[in-house]
Amino acid sequence: MDIRRQQVRVRDLQSTREWLEPYDQLLIATGASALKPNIPGIDAHGVLSINSLQSGIEARRLVDDREPRRAVIVGGGYIGLEMAEALLLRGIEVALVERSPQVMGTLDLDMGALVSAALRRQGATLYLEEAVAGFDQKNGWVQAVVTNQRTIPADVVILGMGVAPNSALADEAGMTLGQKKAIKVSKRMQTEIENVWAAGDCAESFHLVTGKPFYVALGTVANKHGRVAGENIAGGNAEFAGVVGTAVTKVCSVEVARTGLQIKEITEQHIEFADAVIESTTRAGYYPESGPITVKLLAEKGSGRLLGGQIVGCEGAAKRIDIIATALHAGFTAEQVSGLDLSYAPPYSPLWDPVLIAARQLAKKL
Amino acid sequence: MDIRRQQVRVRDLQSTREWLEPYDQLLIATGASALKPNIPGIDAHGVLSINSLQSGIEARRLVDDREPRRAVIVGGGYIGLEMAEALLLRGIEVALVERSPQVMGTLDLDMGALVSAALRRQGATLYLEEAVAGFDQKNGWVQAVVTNQRTIPADVVILGMGVAPNSALADEAGMTLGQKKAIKVSKRMQTEIENVWAAGDCAESFHLVTGKPFYVALGTVANKHGRVAGENIAGGNAEFAGVVGTAVTKVCSVEVARTGLQIKEITEQHIEFADAVIESTTRAGYYPESGPITVKLLAEKGSGRLLGGQIVGCEGAAKRIDIIATALHAGFTAEQVSGLDLSYAPPYSPLWDPVLIAARQLAKKL
Repeated sequence: MDIRRQQVRVRDLQSTREWLEPYDQLLIATGASALKPNIPGIDAHGVLSINSLQSGIEARRLVDDREPRRAVIVGGGYIGLEMAEALLLRGIEVALVERSPQVMGTLDLDMGALVSAALRRQGATLYLEEAVAGFDQKNGWVQAVVTNQRTIPADVVILGMGVAPNSALADEAGMTLGQKKAIKVSKRMQTEIENVWAAGDCAESFHLVTGKPFYVALGTVANKHGRVAGENIAGGNAEFAGVVGTAVTKVCSVEVARTGLQIKEITEQHIEFADAVIESTTRAGYYPESGPITVKLLAEKGSGRLLGGQIVGCEGAAKRIDIIATALHAGFTAEQVSGLDLSYAPPYSPLWDPVLIAARQLAKKL
Repeated sequence: MDIRRQQVRVRDLQSTREWLEPYDQLLIATGASALKPNIPGIDAHGVLSINSLQSGIEARRLVDDREPRRAVIVGGGYIGLEMAEALLLRGIEVALVERSPQVMGTLDLDMGALVSAALRRQGATLYLEEAVAGFDQKNGWVQAVVTNQRTIPADVVILGMGVAPNSALADEAGMTLGQKKAIKVSKRMQTEIENVWAAGDCAESFHLVTGKPFYVALGTVANKHGRVAGENIAGGNAEFAGVVGTAVTKVCSVEVARTGLQIKEITEQHIEFADAVIESTTRAGYYPESGPITVKLLAEKGSGRLLGGQIVGCEGAAKRIDIIATALHAGFTAEQVSGLDLSYAPPYSPLWDPVLIAARQLAKKL
């Protein structure tokens, strides 16, 4: 990219022809790539990153064709957990290796432990606080995952080690990078250079709870980025509303959701906080298919301002995170959350929705 | 009650003994009663009001003992619909008579029509815009419901004609009644007379969207009333947060929810409004058990302020009403709702949650 001259060098990947393309407005939407650290054997056949529709199709083809008996998943984030579910449902033995003390690092330790327990109940073996050192191979195919503590036989390996923004092109062109090396943008999704915009997994967002820049690679956010950038490039004046860090996933019958700041993030912001963790049921206790739900809420001491929430539970639990996310957008206190006029009928909730119960408990501690 | 002398006359219903009981603080929590208009034959055996655990038990006993073949439900509100579900699931023929042009009068006509269609699909017969004129009986037992248009054979009749606050005692004692003759109270649940409090289905609430007094007889609200009154009677200073008119119900596989103001209420407030009705799916379209959901949102023209929302859909649809309720508490515009960072994963939602899709559509019209 030559930003001064308003032109980009384009290479046709089929003909390898190259030319300079002038532009009036430039949008960088280069996305993110799955992290694939330089570990011996990581390029062996059977070691798969899942980060596109195509890679998902290839993973399924490999499972269909080679009928692996043992899978090892590296990384306990969303991709790791969702692949664990998919492989367990195919009847494959699943082991999961995670460097940190818990799966789902975006949850606090206590809530993450509930997810670990659920994974173990589903039959997965977890190796927490273990780092992958290499991959054994034979005839070019992966045979085992070697950690700092053991060798785990593997017919297939799934890498779920997170993603990084594809911002090298922007970096080389002299643009400023921000959080996690994502491209720095304004609320209008404009980079620091006029006529150049960035949107999606390559671009920074900002967090409404901290008021600070934040990087998150999620489809919901990328889609909103794109709409804002598109409207502004066409002469409009749209602003991205920001994120509160909402995410949700499912591992077999266990639903997991989070929004706002977790304890680690709150501590980094030097905010004094209190938390409440409550156990309740997804429906009225006597109603068929009522099941357990654990809700954790966090709020700032003094102001009472809600900072975040986490939910682990059975079917019907997770979507309640949207109540907490909306309350974060509103800047509500725990007390205000406890007064929300939420819906109740026995098929949907106990009389006090679990989110309200948690907010009431929390409000007493602030 | 003698408010000047701070005493109440108490009657022991078993011994019929009466005495005067002095008080420092008096709480009126007399609840509400099911409406039972003076229609010929309404006191026949087999004509049941459902408004307490006991009345529910009696209804079930009657169904068990007499094995009715044909049930007629009078009134298409929450009680009517929930009893329709219960009786249909018992294999009983259900006819429902409703005076207005739709069931679920708290929904707009278009959304109510979706519920009527669902009831008909479940096998119920609806007689809309028909008023009940009387009940035919034989040997003291109900035999048929007579409307202004026809006679409908009935082995059992369920009255779901709404409720009225039990405020006669307060009225006689000289207290002011408000909306629907509920006892007028402050946000602290204090009546206009010092040391006298009222809470629950006998007391008024106030509506956060209109800023005006409002009557609603729901367990969630009654429970919150009680906590506020209790805290204040004990010397605290709690305030009831108000309601936004949230309610939810289920008729077999169809979920129904509403919050805020419906068109009728908006018009009464002389507010200029726009609405958007969108059809989407409860989960990602390709995900198993994904099904239809219709979301309607209403907002004020000019300001863009959200006024209300209604949802009809399959399993997983209704609880989304809590997002809208929380947004009403926050006073959000449709534009602000469309920017909410809600959770997404294929088992829970399309990439854009149906509530966000509706908000985006609506924001364009304001």
